[in-house]
Amino acid sequence: MYKSEGLKKALGLKELYIKDDGLNPTSSLKDRASVIAVVKALELGKETIACSSTGNAASSLAGNAARVGLKTVIFVPERAPIGKLTQLLIYGATVVSVKSDYGATFGLSKKAIDHYGWYNRNAAINPLMVEGKKTVALEIAEQMDFIMPDWVAVSVGDGCTIGGVYKGFYDLIQIGLIARVPKILGVQAEGCAPIHKAFHSGRPLEPTEENTIADSISVGIPRNPIKALNAVKKSGGTYVTVTDDEILAAMALLGRTEGIFGEPAGVTGVAGIIKAKEEGTITKEDCVVTVITGNGLKDVNNGMKASGDPIKIGPDLASFIKKYEPIISED
Amino acid sequence: MYKSEGLKKALGLKELYIKDDGLNPTSSLKDRASVIAVVKALELGKETIACSSTGNAASSLAGNAARVGLKTVIFVPERAPIGKLTQLLIYGATVVSVKSDYGATFGLSKKAIDHYGWYNRNAAINPLMVEGKKTVALEIAEQMDFIMPDWVAVSVGDGCTIGGVYKGFYDLIQIGLIARVPKILGVQAEGCAPIHKAFHSGRPLEPTEENTIADSISVGIPRNPIKALNAVKKSGGTYVTVTDDEILAAMALLGRTEGIFGEPAGVTGVAGIIKAKEEGTITKEDCVVTVITGNGLKDVNNGMKASGDPIKIGPDLASFIKKYEPIISED
Repeated sequence: MYKSEGLKKALGLKELYIKDDGLNPTSSLKDRASVIAVVKALELGKETIACSSTGNAASSLAGNAARVGLKTVIFVPERAPIGKLTQLLIYGATVVSVKSDYGATFGLSKKAIDHYGWYNRNAAINPLMVEGKKTVALEIAEQMDFIMPDWVAVSVGDGCTIGGVYKGFYDLIQIGLIARVPKILGVQAEGCAPIHKAFHSGRPLEPTEENTIADSISVGIPRNPIKALNAVKKSGGTYVTVTDDEILAAMALLGRTEGIFGEPAGVTGVAGIIKAKEEGTITKEDCVVTVITGNGLKDVNNGMKASGDPIKIGPDLASFIKKYEPIISED
Repeated sequence: MYKSEGLKKALGLKELYIKDDGLNPTSSLKDRASVIAVVKALELGKETIACSSTGNAASSLAGNAARVGLKTVIFVPERAPIGKLTQLLIYGATVVSVKSDYGATFGLSKKAIDHYGWYNRNAAINPLMVEGKKTVALEIAEQMDFIMPDWVAVSVGDGCTIGGVYKGFYDLIQIGLIARVPKILGVQAEGCAPIHKAFHSGRPLEPTEENTIADSISVGIPRNPIKALNAVKKSGGTYVTVTDDEILAAMALLGRTEGIFGEPAGVTGVAGIIKAKEEGTITKEDCVVTVITGNGLKDVNNGMKASGDPIKIGPDLASFIKKYEPIISED
């Protein structure tokens, strides 16, 4: 976790801390859940462990399972970015690319798991996953010396991660280490925001289309909506949505102010802070924590959209000066 | 650092430890040098810091400089992988893509640095870089409780990293914490092995072509050859070369046995252990440490070459079973 200076100033906050879970062993927050899945599968004497995932849960499972000699079968929707697919294959997983959306991919994984009797890592089915993910809240609390921030901002897809964030703080209250859960800001992409809609309408969750570059949170039929709604409600927080352009802008801002490269879903929390600040929900008096849930190197194509282009020249000083001087004078 | 089980067994070693520097803040070992560069530039009151690099030193510098508000100008040869270029641009660096090889890129960076008076991070010029890189040896020693392994295997390009590995152990001897430097195995790619050639021929270093997928160590005119030659000679180690196919095989083997995804130069040390084992230099009685110098997500295209292809099907169980059963029966 970094104490922010550059991004804090850019966002106009009193204090900002950035928890970079892109530096976990397989480069996403999902490692926190996968280690639990792997240990439990070993306990049960299973040889194969399976899940469906838009990417990070899968690559995380494959990496952690490889380490202990378990086989993995991973079901991914065909839109999964190449970086995540490559990770899976490198980790030796049997990868099943399903020509459909996340809902149908999830459905097929469930059928195959039932058919073969594999251990099931799917976060909606497996109640232990939230127990792994809650460790991010435990670490945040410990690293802040148990003095709670006003807000914790986190991106939301399936709903398991935000459920884990809440559960971690909740558990710390039960053992008397903290007095309250920070307000949780749930951030969804505008093109896929079923939980945001249910939260603000008060009506039951309705499936939505999956239309965002933030593939890790592009979940039209989330599997943990109750956890995700309760986490925000009980914390006194709220939900906001951000556009893909706002996500890309947050990615570039985070990179140039902090030297942190997050994937689209990884920086959606940062984009959400900007939105909540504009709306007056978060103020300049607030201390905020955000979690970067995945490494930007997993999705370089979207990274390229967020960044600019290099200067292209031959190897002579005159060419360089001619291209460089106008850039300096712009500053 | 991981204590290996799976890869140890696959390689037939007594003990194996894997130091994964792909999990550093900008996903490579180079962060160890860049933090020193950034601190020294601030001490000197510089506003801009520059370097030429095949990639990792550059992205590392850009990320670390962004964090403290320094500007960066980075010169890269045009062959730099897209993941590394994107990182640079995301971190807000001015990126100069030079239509030439690393030698000419280095030359241009030197001219521009002289012209503008920037702080120079180039590892050959800046003697402090090896002081940063030596921390990898300090950590290895500490994590092994100062009981030295027989061998440390590391990939070699410019020669600064292997120089740093030696310097770290050397310093620990000076202060009495260890008794000897482990034998250092320097590993170069067959398509670009000028230091390997100089080591075994005993003749002065000659520039070579740069013909390997391991871009981070594809350096035909290395800038730290004396350090690189002395490190191996004084440690009682040796140099080996590995082919690109051997590098890709090592990448896949490391991934499926340990759940670690290294870039080509990052796994070249692993490929070198296999080679040295075949040649009888390293034996089954040895305790070996290898350093994964960069994250595989930086170079997904080569990752795809090392891994296989996914199974592609529609979302129905029958299609899955039909494709999956032959895979199980192969096992």
